[in-house]
Formats: sequence, C-alpha cells, structure tokens
Amino acid sequence: MNSFGTLFRITTFGESHGPAIGVVIDGCPAGLEIDEAFIQSELSRRKPGQSKITTQRKEDDSFQILSGVFEGKTTGAPIALVIENKDQRSKDYSHLEKTFRPSHADYTYQTKYGLRDHRGGGRSSARETAARVAAGAIAKLLLNKSGIEIQAYVSQVGAIKAPPYTQLDLSKTESTIVRCPDPATAEKMIALIDEVRLSRDTIGGVVTCVIKNTPVGLGEPVFDKLHAQLGKGMLSINAVKGFEYGSGFDGVTLRGSQHNDEFVNDKGTIRTKTNHSGGILGGISNGEDIYFNVAFKPVATIMQDQQSVDTEGNEVTIQGKGRHDPCVVPRAVPIVEAMAALVLADFLLRSKLSKI
Amino acid sequence: MNSFGTLFRITTFGESHGPAIGVVIDGCPAGLEIDEAFIQSELSRRKPGQSKITTQRKEDDSFQILSGVFEGKTTGAPIALVIENKDQRSKDYSHLEKTFRPSHADYTYQTKYGLRDHRGGGRSSARETAARVAAGAIAKLLLNKSGIEIQAYVSQVGAIKAPPYTQLDLSKTESTIVRCPDPATAEKMIALIDEVRLSRDTIGGVVTCVIKNTPVGLGEPVFDKLHAQLGKGMLSINAVKGFEYGSGFDGVTLRGSQHNDEFVNDKGTIRTKTNHSGGILGGISNGEDIYFNVAFKPVATIMQDQQSVDTEGNEVTIQGKGRHDPCVVPRAVPIVEAMAALVLADFLLRSKLSKI
Amino acid sequence: MNSFGTLFRITTFGESHGPAIGVVIDGCPAGLEIDEAFIQSELSRRKPGQSKITTQRKEDDSFQILSGVFEGKTTGAPIALVIENKDQRSKDYSHLEKTFRPSHADYTYQTKYGLRDHRGGGRSSARETAARVAAGAIAKLLLNKSGIEIQAYVSQVGAIKAPPYTQLDLSKTESTIVRCPDPATAEKMIALIDEVRLSRDTIGGVVTCVIKNTPVGLGEPVFDKLHAQLGKGMLSINAVKGFEYGSGFDGVTLRGSQHNDEFVNDKGTIRTKTNHSGGILGGISNGEDIYFNVAFKPVATIMQDQQSVDTEGNEVTIQGKGRHDPCVVPRAVPIVEAMAALVLADFLLRSKLSKI
Amino acid sequence: MNSFGTLFRITTFGESHGPAIGVVIDGCPAGLEIDEAFIQSELSRRKPGQSKITTQRKEDDSFQILSGVFEGKTTGAPIALVIENKDQRSKDYSHLEKTFRPSHADYTYQTKYGLRDHRGGGRSSARETAARVAAGAIAKLLLNKSGIEIQAYVSQVGAIKAPPYTQLDLSKTESTIVRCPDPATAEKMIALIDEVRLSRDTIGGVVTCVIKNTPVGLGEPVFDKLHAQLGKGMLSINAVKGFEYGSGFDGVTLRGSQHNDEFVNDKGTIRTKTNHSGGILGGISNGEDIYFNVAFKPVATIMQDQQSVDTEGNEVTIQGKGRHDPCVVPRAVPIVEAMAALVLADFLLRSKLSKI
Repeated sequence: MNSFGTLFRITTFGESHGPAIGVVIDGCPAGLEIDEAFIQSELSRRKPGQSKITTQRKEDDSFQILSGVFEGKTTGAPIALVIENKDQRSKDYSHLEKTFRPSHADYTYQTKYGLRDHRGGGRSSARETAARVAAGAIAKLLLNKSGIEIQAYVSQVGAIKAPPYTQLDLSKTESTIVRCPDPATAEKMIALIDEVRLSRDTIGGVVTCVIKNTPVGLGEPVFDKLHAQLGKGMLSINAVKGFEYGSGFDGVTLRGSQHNDEFVNDKGTIRTKTNHSGGILGGISNGEDIYFNVAFKPVATIMQDQQSVDTEGNEVTIQGKGRHDPCVVPRAVPIVEAMAALVLADFLLRSKLSKI
Repeated sequence: MNSFGTLFRITTFGESHGPAIGVVIDGCPAGLEIDEAFIQSELSRRKPGQSKITTQRKEDDSFQILSGVFEGKTTGAPIALVIENKDQRSKDYSHLEKTFRPSHADYTYQTKYGLRDHRGGGRSSARETAARVAAGAIAKLLLNKSGIEIQAYVSQVGAIKAPPYTQLDLSKTESTIVRCPDPATAEKMIALIDEVRLSRDTIGGVVTCVIKNTPVGLGEPVFDKLHAQLGKGMLSINAVKGFEYGSGFDGVTLRGSQHNDEFVNDKGTIRTKTNHSGGILGGISNGEDIYFNVAFKPVATIMQDQQSVDTEGNEVTIQGKGRHDPCVVPRAVPIVEAMAALVLADFLLRSKLSKI
Repeated sequence: MNSFGTLFRITTFGESHGPAIGVVIDGCPAGLEIDEAFIQSELSRRKPGQSKITTQRKEDDSFQILSGVFEGKTTGAPIALVIENKDQRSKDYSHLEKTFRPSHADYTYQTKYGLRDHRGGGRSSARETAARVAAGAIAKLLLNKSGIEIQAYVSQVGAIKAPPYTQLDLSKTESTIVRCPDPATAEKMIALIDEVRLSRDTIGGVVTCVIKNTPVGLGEPVFDKLHAQLGKGMLSINAVKGFEYGSGFDGVTLRGSQHNDEFVNDKGTIRTKTNHSGGILGGISNGEDIYFNVAFKPVATIMQDQQSVDTEGNEVTIQGKGRHDPCVVPRAVPIVEAMAALVLADFLLRSKLSKI
Repeated sequence: MNSFGTLFRITTFGESHGPAIGVVIDGCPAGLEIDEAFIQSELSRRKPGQSKITTQRKEDDSFQILSGVFEGKTTGAPIALVIENKDQRSKDYSHLEKTFRPSHADYTYQTKYGLRDHRGGGRSSARETAARVAAGAIAKLLLNKSGIEIQAYVSQVGAIKAPPYTQLDLSKTESTIVRCPDPATAEKMIALIDEVRLSRDTIGGVVTCVIKNTPVGLGEPVFDKLHAQLGKGMLSINAVKGFEYGSGFDGVTLRGSQHNDEFVNDKGTIRTKTNHSGGILGGISNGEDIYFNVAFKPVATIMQDQQSVDTEGNEVTIQGKGRHDPCVVPRAVPIVEAMAALVLADFLLRSKLSKI
C-alpha cells in the first residue's frame, strides 16, 4: 500500500512522467496554520537542478492544495496536494522500454505486475519523494507547535566523513551545496562528487539526522518502537541500504558498562550523562537528542555502457543516457527530514492517548 | 499497537512476570499443517538457560494452541497460542520498583503511562519475543510450502567477526552454542562472552540473516518495500541498534559502476552477476539471496553498581542482580529468523494480489 | 480479519468447542481501574442457561486476565482475557460433520476454507460474542469516566412491540427475563417465546439501544461516521439482519419540514427540539440521545427435521438436536451494549485528536 | 479517516466549494483495462442537474486520472482521480457562515474542529460521493471480470413502494428519471416528488440493491461479515438512516421453520430453495442473490424558514435558499451501487487468500 503512518497518515500517488504526483494527508488536526511559502522552500531544497552537483532536470515543483485548508488553516479534512510534472522527457526512455536497467526496479516491477510504465522509472522514480517532502513540511509545522526540531545533513560522501554531530554547527548545513555543515569536509565532498560526475559515474553517502526537543514518551512498545518506525521510513527512501541510531553498528563492540547511559537529576529534569541510546529507550523517546544515520548507495543510473538483458531474455548493452544525480545525498537531506517529521507527527498524536 | 503485519498479522501480549505471554495470528490461510514439534523446537532455540553463555532463568516455554487449528490443520480462524510464565522471580525486582535502570525502558514507560509493571521489565522484557518465535515458526511452515528458507547466524561478537556468509556452511550454525557456523570464530566468540560474563559485564554483536529461494515479486513499492519492512521488524527486536542489507553501510564508498548488479540470462532464468542489491530491487525481491545484518547493543543489565535516579528524582546506586545474558546474539538468532519469516509470509500473501 | 476498532481495538479468537475463547484489547489507555466483578456480571447477562427461555448449555463464563493489568489498573499494554469452554458436547454435532445446516454458516465456511470445525459451529458460533462482552465491559469502564451511559433492551419479539423508549423506564430492563422494561409487554413476549419453544421452533426480535450523555464530537466524517461504525458493529453480531438509527426506515415517509430537528438555546446549551436525527449529525454526535434498533432473525437451529444436502451433494434430512435458544434477543442485549461501547470508546479516543 | 476498504482501498478528499474533489484508489491489481467512458457515464448518473426532479446545480463532473494507468491499463500503482468543482456559488452560503442549519453537520463540525468551511457544507457535502462513484466504477470493471453484477433502483419514495425485486425487470431502471423500474410506480413517485418540490419541501425514500453472480466465499467471519461491511458502506452515505438485507426487519416476525433456507442440489450446484438469508450465511456469500434496502431521510435543506441558533448561541431564523434536491434517492442509486462495488471488490481480493 502507498500509505505511511497510523494517525497522521499520508498516501502518495504519481509517476515520474505522468501528469502529476501528489499526496493526501489524513489525520492532520484542525486549526494548524499552513505556511505555503515554507512548503515551497522545502520542495526547493529537494528539487532537481538546484546546483551543479545535482541532476539538470528542471522542475520548479510548485504545488496546489486541493482540499483540507480553509482561510489558511487546516479543517481536519484530508489535505490533497498536487505537484505537476513539467520537464519530463519521455523519449529519453524509449530505448529502455524493453530492457532492464541494472540495479533499477524495471525487472522486479515487470515480473510483479506483468507490465510497467518504463518512462523515468514510473512509480519507482525518486520523483515520488517530492510528495513526501510536501507532506513532511506540514508535519514540521505541526511539530513546531511542540518545539520539536529536525535537522539532517550530509555526514559522508564515499569515504569522506564529517566529524560527529556534536562537534558541528548544524545551522550551517544549507550554506554549502552538498549540505555538509563542516566547510572543510564539504569542500572535499564537492570535489569528489565533481570528479565522479566527470568520470560518468556515481557515488554513495550517508545522511545524519538529529532531532532536538522531543518530549519524553513518543514511540510505542514492541513493534512500533520509535526507532523501528524511523528505520522503516528511512529504508523506504529510494537507494537507502542501511539505518542505525545512537551507537549503531559501532556500539556492538562496547561493553554494557561503557554503553549504558546513567541517569542524573539535572536541576529537576531527569537526563542521561551519555547518549549511546540515541534518545530512545525501549522504543520510546527519553528527551535526549535523537540521532541516526542513513546509508545511500551510489545512484544506479551511470553514464556508461552496461550489460543487461531485455524482456525477452536477450543479453543487451544499455547506453548511459538521461539526466541524473552523480550523488544523491545532498538532495536526500530534506527527504530524510520529511520522513522523520512524518514519523514524529504520527507518534506525537499517538502519545496523547497513552493514559486516561 | 502491538500488531505486526498486514495480511499475515500477529498481535502479541503478555509481560515478563504475568501469568502468561502469547500471540494471536490472524490471516493464516486455511489448510496449513501445524507441526507442533517444530514450533517447540524453535522456542527451545530461544529459551533461556540453554547453555552456559545465556541467562540461567529456567523456562521450558511449552505452549498451548487455543484456537484456529482443527485436526492438525489451520482453519482460517485466528490462531491463539499461549506460553505460561513459570520461573519468574518477582522479588528479584522489588528493589527496582522505584528506580530507573540505566538504558532500560523503566523511565520512559513510567513517564508515558504514569505507572508500570516493574517486575522483570514488564511489557518491555525480551520475554515477549518468545511469542514472536512461536508465530514465526508458523510463518516458516507457510513459507516452506513455497520453498523459501531462512537462516540466521551470529556473525560478530564484540570485535570478532566471521567471514562473509558466502564462505560459510550455514547448516553448521546450530552446532556451536554461540550459533556461529565457523568453528574457529565461534570458539573465539565463546571465549570472549565467557570473559565478559566473568567480569560481570555484557557485550554486543551482529546477527546476519540469509533468505534463499524467494520468488521474484515479494515486497511493495514505496513505503512497504521488502527491506523497509524487514528493517522495521528487526529494529523492533529488543536491543537492536542498526539494520543494513546487501552492500549496506560499506556500499556507500563504492562507485555506481562497481556497485551495480548486471543482469544475465542464466539458462533461461534472469539472474544478476553480483548481488550488492541483497536480493531486492526497488523494494521487491529479484530472486537472488536476500541478506542483511542486525546490530545488537550490549545487554543493559550488568552485574555492577550503577548510578541512576529514582521516581522521586533522587540520585541512587543500583546494584546488579538477577539472571541475564552476557551477550544476547546467540538467543537472538531464532528471533531474527522469526521476524524475517513473519515479514516474508505477509508479502507472500500480498504478492498474490498484484495482478488480475 | 478478526479485529474491530481503530484506536481501542479488539481481536477475538476461539471456537465453540475448542479449549477456550478470548480477546486481546489493544489501545486501552493506562491508568483505568479494572473492576473484575463488573466484567463478570456483564458476562453473566450473556451466558447460556440463565433462564427458562434460553439455551440450557451451562457455562459459567469465568474469565482470566493474562496481561495488561497491574495492581488493578491498566498499564497501556494489551489486555488478553481468556474464557474456558467447559460444557461443550461435541458428540451432539458428530451427525453434522458432513452436512450443511440450513441458514447456518456450514456451507459457506466449508467452501471458503476447504475444511471446517463442525463442532457447535466452530468459529461461526455465537459463543464468540462472550469475548466481545468482556471487552465491551472494559470499554464501558472507560466510557463511565466520561459519563456516557449505554442501555439496551428488547423492544420487539415476533410481532409484539414495546412502546417507544422515551415512554419507558430503562432501569427496569433487567427485572424481567426477556429484558423488556415494560412489564406488560414483557409478559406477552415471554409467553410467545414459551409457545415457540414448545413448538420446537424459534422466533426473531428487535433490540433497541439508547446512549445518553455522549459529548458533542464523537464520530468521523465520511466513511467512519458514528452511525456507520455502530451499524457495522451491530451487523457483525450473529443473526442480525438490519440496523436503523433515529427515525430509521419510518423516517422516509416524512417531509423535511417534519423531520428536521430545529436548534434551540437551552440555558446556554445548544439542543434540538426534536431528535429524529438520533443524536448524530453528519456522522458526529450532537449531544442528544443516540438511539437505534437492531433486527435479529429467528435462530436457525430448530428442533424439527429439515431438508438439506451433505458435503457430497446428497440430499439429506437433518434432525433437530442440541441445546439452543428459542429466541436470541434476551441474551443479545448485553452483546448490543458491548458493541456500542466498543464503538464509542474508539471514537472517544479518536476525538481527542480532532484539533490542535 | 477518509479511507474505505482493506485491500481495494479508497481515500477521498475535497470539499463542495474547493478547487476539486477526488479519490486515490490503492490496491487495484495491475492489468485491468480502464474504460474512461464507463467511469464518465457512472458520474453522469449521479451528477446534479440531470432532470427536473434533481438540484439545478450544473456540474459536468468530468474527471482526470493523474496516476496508476499506463496505456489504458492499471499498473498496480495508486490511481488518483480528480474532479474539478465548477459551478459552486459560495455567495449563496455567506448568510450561513455563522448559523447552524437544522439537521445538517454545521454544528457538529464547528464543535469538533473549532472551525469549518461553511460553503456548501464543506467536507460534509454529498458532493464527496462523486469521488466514490468514480472509484466504484473502477471497482465494477474489476468485478465484471468475475461476472458479478450490481443493480440498484428506487423502491420507495415517501409511502409509495415498488413491488419486490423478484417481480421487476431491473434493466428498466434507467428508463425513468426516478430510477424505479416499475413504470406505474415510477409515475406516482415522480408526481409525489414534484408536489413536494412545489411545496418547497423534501421527502425521503428507499434504494434497493441486488447483486447477482457472486461466487461463494466473499466476506469474512466475525467483524468483517459481508453484510456488516455493506451496511457500513451504505450508512456512510449522506442522509442514510437504515440498512437491512435479506428478510431484514420484517424477518423478525417469522418462525425459524419459515425463515430457514433449505439447501437443495440443483443439477450439481448447491442452492437454497428460498432466500431469506439475502445471499449471505455467516457473513459469507452463498452464491444466491444478495439484496438489501437502504433508507434515506428527507433532504435537510428545505426552501422554508426554520428556527435555529448561530455560533454565538443567539436564536435566529434561517431562510431557505440555494439549489437542492427535493428527494435524494434517484441520484443515490449510483452511489449505492458504487459503495456495493467497493465492498465486493475488496472481499473478492481478500477471498483469494482464504486457503493455501
């Protein structure tokens, strides 16, 4: 199903080369002021063509709200939001109608559905994430009322890594085109992406996300743990291969006596001395910073010839064509934030029901 | 909510020190033969007290099926399965009634719900996973009809790592108490866990899971991608901090030209030359091996004194007491398999509806 | 699926002649005091063998709570509640193993599932409703905190009808074995049921339910209208053939000018002069009494010979045997109340999220 | 939530006077041919202004499909369908901004959400049902592949009733503007509606629906019984006050020996001699005709002065203005069919999973 969330629930629709993509948001409480300029600014952070290190497809990603907002405020009715597709070049894809691009979804969609919209990846295109970013912007507006702040940034491109988030000034994230708040690291990352682009290749990276000011109590025990739902949200983004929060994979080498976060009474507030837990205990937020990493593979579309097969099973050579990102992580930053916002908005609503 | 899955859906219930834990499985098709001995054997792989490197709590974890099975076969009605708690020692926890154990869920539960069952962690106890293992065993019986095989093993304890799965004989997993199929690595792992146990501490680890013979077409586009749901399932297991599949976090350093899996025609079957994709393209299985890693933190309960606060906010010292695992991964192997089986069974049913 | 409700959600399980039936309640807020005696008293209103006009199967319907309650209060964890089957007489059904009883679910279950538990109707037995009554009792405890009161009664047996509810003293409902609060009508109803029983036949009836003190705002627009979900809940009860609320089927003959309920300001409270709307406008409660009727067909099991076919398609004669109710409505009263309570508890929780 | 259905799932959006209304259909299998002319013809059966006995608002209700269809066939991706609002006259409603119309949803929406779109009823307008009709048309295309046929008609207006459906030629339903297949009854109904319209009043009615050629096995036990979900779907339609299937409310006066439908072997097919069950046993279709009645109240908007209160609690007189239907049932016929189709399409998909 194409829905995400339980109480703050989105359903996205649309293909890369159809007339439009969009989203229906169901469950947004009434009375929330909708700042359309903010939604647009979030979409612009994700849109193609925003810098030399992104795809050159031109979409202004302007949107129209069809329902659910009256005189600038949400009414409690579902909010439908539509973004037209304008700069699709379907003929760029006509040579792919009968072939399966390596590490793309062509083969699995064709087998699963018996047919597919081959133009630009159809439903499997990352263009779908524009709808998530628009919905995520509305979720952010809701979270802002509770003071919750979400900030993601590029922490790794190829083997180039930024220092830990606690050593960074995250307010500088948007000041570089690669969205790494550390200027020196950002410079190296941009140089690497440029080199990769010129060699007609692509490269992977990591986006780190930090959530501050979360109240204690978001997340549900057992299956809908806060980090489990965050993980699902992140893994549902195109090209994502891994998710870890708090101490993550590195934490497995620690002893319990090193890893445990002791509680202290900080002027009346219960806090922890360290935060290997990543702000989540037993699947429920404890008030400390929530932080997690999301691994993105190198983009599958490369400007090089590749061996493959066609729908008849014949082995063929696919030529690299079209307009694509050499590295997806700079544009993935607002998508990661959007999915985090959607998860938190949902749990914020759910948390209102935990006790009588 | 305490449910997992869309069409093959489980709901678990029960606390560590209540009369029983259990699970209701809804959506299992009628006509499946239920092999009770197999369910028991899966529970025995997870049960406490099975070896010197696990907790010494004694539970035989025998179960009773209350509904949904008639003359050895499922009827299509919900299957309720109950496991009694027998060896709980609630008095071991009386000193914890008013304190918050570091890196446990005590504080977040107390704040979220206004009260909590402090005995053995209550609902947040890993004892809940016995219900998942029982349900997962039934999911495995369903998957077996389609030839799908799931095998997990311990691939890392602390900094000790096993070779990649393609170099291992996974059928040997159960031959060592640490559930690592490589005898030399297993020996080192056991020695490390023993040392950690004697120092009254704990250590983390990684479980790797491999799924073979999956048909093409399992998983849904966009939010319910196969790996997104697998990730959620794994992250919902107690103590899990990270999930990666296929090339995972290491894949971010590769170029697209290295990472892409070219298609070939292998005697009439479309296969890929390499498998960085981990058997999943666009969220849908492509017929290759699915493999993923799950990171477990060191167990939070240690046999050492720790600083903390109580429910009044007073700073207190907590003494290490009770019966716990020095390293959770050996017993986590069947839990990882169970969650994988539940995810696959659900997608197997969903896949029957993808085309007319 | 065997679940009902969105936020206050129950999942029932169990067959008529299995070891037990039961229910898992998920989403009950923490901190609710559980009055076990009240749950038992509700079960006793539904239990078989309570009077001469009900089936003589003897079940005391005692229950055990397995989880989710600690020191008398809900913890926010799922509440599992189990009721043992004790007086099943499966041999009474051995002659039915291969035949399809008229107007029972034998034929449709057999065809849908390929097999069935024929003993006592298996999953299709009205015994399942005991689990609903237990869950409904907990829902009532939650509703009581908001002052909401639910009272159902028998308003019709065969062609014998009670006066409208506004002319009745509903507190007298439990004073007659037929659960009609009007003594004169009750007497006639009991006489009719007795006559029907002696003629080895059965008869239908109507249960009316009245809900008082509902706050304004329960129910959701469009698909989850309050009366739509009430209707679904009632129609899901065994033997129900119809549902109407407010003016119901009779209202179709009125003109709008007669039917509309004009608003008045009653000492600061907005009220309506009449209540053809049945307390619901646009699917949302308006604070007036909610009232509705539920039609029950005559019980399908009769003590007479009937023509039918067996699983091989042979025409056969089925003899009337076993222990059954000549008229289901007296025992249906607590079931109707339970389903109403479950619907309202769910909407009460949902209503907390309608505005920021 | 604004969604309906489990596997064939729709989400509608839009208000009466916003830019557009629409629907997203999720779960439609791939490969279904989409006949756009058929969808349009269904919308035209519902659209306003189609005859002298309907409202004179003019909407051509042309639609655009934004996604999920490629080269005339469904792709398995969500189908978004949008219908523009063109002839809204919001100024007709400016006098209602601060008043609560009797028997409308103004008061309950205002209280529930703290604000409301007062223009034309906003989200509570029956205009929303156009989206259902469009989605229902696609559901019908899916059902047609299985031979299932759905036909509704007007069986009652005020006190004027048509004969039982078994005595009617349903293919004549569209031949009269009131959609009653019996010409003599239709004439009387039209005369009554005309009289009501001239007296600036409204009148209620009943729509009967008949579903033929349903396979055995649609519907789920316990809560999601076929008739329970049909009932919910019907009760969710604006102005509906009651639902009954098979023998319905009249059946309560019968004895079991009269009401039971005996099985016979009809040349190898198991059939029933009578059909008081309305084609459903234990919540599951048995292959006989499914038939049910849906009661609609008189439209609340009348062209007469009415007493009411405003948002400040002042008592006010509301003048009858605007364009409305004197009787809703002729236009309700395609809506009833659409909801029936949506329910059946969902259960048809679910039925594919009942056995291994």
